[in-house]
Amino acid sequence: MDAALTRWEEVCTQSPALRFVDICLRGVGQVMFQDNPLSGALFLAAILWGSLAAGAPHVFLAGLVGVAAATLTAMWLKADAAALKAGLYGYNGVLVGLALATFLASGPALWVYVALGAAVSTVAALATAGALRPLGAPALTAPFVAVTWIMLLASYGFAGLSGAGLPAAGVVAPFEPEPALSAGVASYLGAVLLSISQVFLKASLVSALLFLAGLAVSSIPAALYALGGAALAVAVAHGFGAESDVVSQGLLGFSPVLTAVALGVTFRRPGRNALAYAALGVVFTVVAQAALNVALRPFAIPALTAPFILVSWMFLLPDAKPASD
Amino acid sequence: MDAALTRWEEVCTQSPALRFVDICLRGVGQVMFQDNPLSGALFLAAILWGSLAAGAPHVFLAGLVGVAAATLTAMWLKADAAALKAGLYGYNGVLVGLALATFLASGPALWVYVALGAAVSTVAALATAGALRPLGAPALTAPFVAVTWIMLLASYGFAGLSGAGLPAAGVVAPFEPEPALSAGVASYLGAVLLSISQVFLKASLVSALLFLAGLAVSSIPAALYALGGAALAVAVAHGFGAESDVVSQGLLGFSPVLTAVALGVTFRRPGRNALAYAALGVVFTVVAQAALNVALRPFAIPALTAPFILVSWMFLLPDAKPASD
Amino acid sequence: MDAALTRWEEVCTQSPALRFVDICLRGVGQVMFQDNPLSGALFLAAILWGSLAAGAPHVFLAGLVGVAAATLTAMWLKADAAALKAGLYGYNGVLVGLALATFLASGPALWVYVALGAAVSTVAALATAGALRPLGAPALTAPFVAVTWIMLLASYGFAGLSGAGLPAAGVVAPFEPEPALSAGVASYLGAVLLSISQVFLKASLVSALLFLAGLAVSSIPAALYALGGAALAVAVAHGFGAESDVVSQGLLGFSPVLTAVALGVTFRRPGRNALAYAALGVVFTVVAQAALNVALRPFAIPALTAPFILVSWMFLLPDAKPASD
Repeated sequence: MDAALTRWEEVCTQSPALRFVDICLRGVGQVMFQDNPLSGALFLAAILWGSLAAGAPHVFLAGLVGVAAATLTAMWLKADAAALKAGLYGYNGVLVGLALATFLASGPALWVYVALGAAVSTVAALATAGALRPLGAPALTAPFVAVTWIMLLASYGFAGLSGAGLPAAGVVAPFEPEPALSAGVASYLGAVLLSISQVFLKASLVSALLFLAGLAVSSIPAALYALGGAALAVAVAHGFGAESDVVSQGLLGFSPVLTAVALGVTFRRPGRNALAYAALGVVFTVVAQAALNVALRPFAIPALTAPFILVSWMFLLPDAKPASD
Repeated sequence: MDAALTRWEEVCTQSPALRFVDICLRGVGQVMFQDNPLSGALFLAAILWGSLAAGAPHVFLAGLVGVAAATLTAMWLKADAAALKAGLYGYNGVLVGLALATFLASGPALWVYVALGAAVSTVAALATAGALRPLGAPALTAPFVAVTWIMLLASYGFAGLSGAGLPAAGVVAPFEPEPALSAGVASYLGAVLLSISQVFLKASLVSALLFLAGLAVSSIPAALYALGGAALAVAVAHGFGAESDVVSQGLLGFSPVLTAVALGVTFRRPGRNALAYAALGVVFTVVAQAALNVALRPFAIPALTAPFILVSWMFLLPDAKPASD
Repeated sequence: MDAALTRWEEVCTQSPALRFVDICLRGVGQVMFQDNPLSGALFLAAILWGSLAAGAPHVFLAGLVGVAAATLTAMWLKADAAALKAGLYGYNGVLVGLALATFLASGPALWVYVALGAAVSTVAALATAGALRPLGAPALTAPFVAVTWIMLLASYGFAGLSGAGLPAAGVVAPFEPEPALSAGVASYLGAVLLSISQVFLKASLVSALLFLAGLAVSSIPAALYALGGAALAVAVAHGFGAESDVVSQGLLGFSPVLTAVALGVTFRRPGRNALAYAALGVVFTVVAQAALNVALRPFAIPALTAPFILVSWMFLLPDAKPASD
């Protein structure tokens, strides 16, 4: 596998077109923190499978348009070459494309919207990096969440864009659990796996396994932390009595999966019990996910990965050092 | 004109009272980034016309009280002399005065409220400058928006202040367009001009022309970018199907006008295609304006210039350098 | 009294258990900025009295669990020793415990929730300190507010936690005053004193006197500013026509009390009319409290001390210097 990656790197060096493909694949891989084109390819396969299984192949296409538009914008703005090559200006774009196509109805305006959102996500990524530089914290998926929230909210004001897949607005009210729904080991394992596939807004077991494979080819610890984070998150959700299709569809678990990989592997700090610290972060991400599900009800938009961003910043800032040090 | 300004500067040097008038005029001019007393005077004329045309002369007076109270507070707090002289502690105050008088019913409590809000806007301006110093970003109208939002929200809890002009609270719901309303060139041009006058919360064509004149006497490029930004914004709003009196009254266009001048002229960075970059910012400001109109519906307050602030920070931070460099 | 404190410090030096008690007492004292174990003990007595008077002794216990869990977490994370010893990692924890037990129904899940929230409040305190270091601003009670808001919102999604004491969600609407309710000197004085006890979420006159005593043993100016801030806040609330049980129960006055002590004593800057500056801050905190009461109505959660944090940051940032200077 390493030999194949070395060979791939060689051909990319000679072909600007293949280099662009390589950067886009790494951009897809960076959604789960992997600077690895093979991870990106496996993640794309998972997205394709999930899109076809949901009868929505245009969602896959919107992801491709998103990562390409975001990467081209970064080239136009002469963004940092090393960060560009590592796919760090692509992961927000692919998520913007997937999210807009998932929540809005297909049509000509959607494609303008995807390209616009992906391009602005790169501006937002540069801005977030600038804003966080004095703090030494990473941007995570904050540019994706900010741009997508704005565009989904705006869709309620634009007749050209219909939010077919958006949640309905509602009043904050105590929760009515559905206790029988998610009992049993099979249901628990299903919720764990779907928590992983929901990172890319997919509810598919096959996609989940492809995502895990994509992580494992790049980093075994990342795959293990993702699985462990999902398992802990679903258990905590059950413990607090959140039984419902929100849990069984993986919707309380995908942010904790990202928190687990971020705190346990990608941004792990030496000299601290990283496992216990990441576990505390995962537990609180479940709480933050439930909180944002409630807080966003009046706005009729989904939480996306905001709980992961919120909690990861909270847990990373105590050790952060400004970039200039 | 330059001779008149030189002469005016001479008499101001000799009279503290005229210097105070000069600072207040520049404060009004700074709402559209112009450190120029003649711009301020023309903007004031536009505000006076718009207030009289709307049958609300007290709104004009509240603007005057606002800029004076904010400037006096800056003197009391011994704010930076150069910034004070350039009117940078006045523009938030005039906007606070105009907005409170526009949205709240007239009465004794209103004038206490205007003076309090304008004074606090200067504290907020100093705080915002302090908070943004490590990032090298300008405060823009963020102090105005923060203070006015707080005071408008609070008016719902104070029997002494009635929010006669405030929007009603509503639930987020898909938008019903009014397609026939804004067809035709005349309607398009009207929407473009009102987008400019709405920067000062006025819906008046005469005011719009006075505002353009005020910009032109100080900076022809600023006047052109304002006009171009408004034209692009109204076209984009039409393109996304936002036809309604929100567009025709200039309410989707005033934030984009400010974004256009900010990105294209005032904070333009060398070595970049400023026109294309500003255009992208203008387009996304339309989206952000639509988004905030929706997001603020549960709170029953207007978006003010928040979309401009949000998008301009997003587009300025990628190039920003800390002030200490 | 000083002799007793010296003696207490001696025994703490010899006993790790008593040192832990000392740190927890200082943590309770730091809610009102007092690094003084005697203040903490008197505050605890006030909390105990208020909890018993309200028929809810478990609220007192939750405060104890909160301060202990937060302090232990700070030890585990090897937080700065001087700040730890001064109780600066305890005050958010005691407030998290009091607030969760006040607003959520008692039960096994509550105690897990209190311990989790208190532990995370320490992570949040470290993160806030890191985020504010470039600005030179203090964290205040922001970690408490952030963690408690998240946990109260999430309780609507968890069947295991019932928000018995939470406000009902509502639509933003103009305010109907209750003019007769709070007339008279006795009612005014009652509102002033309850504004002080509400800092710890208690509505008890005896508790208020104990809190004042706890302030006075450590700092007479702090006690005077607390009393003066409460008196001014209730007068301003009356002036704007906010007469209702919100005023008479001290719920518009507790944030201004904290603003008064913060601006007038704890973070007072030399070379400025601190009294007038603090008074302006107190007046605007009343407005901000009314605003947040309205803004949080759709979310069905209380404002806690957010108005104090917002206004104090606004008034402290103009003079703030980065910590590295």
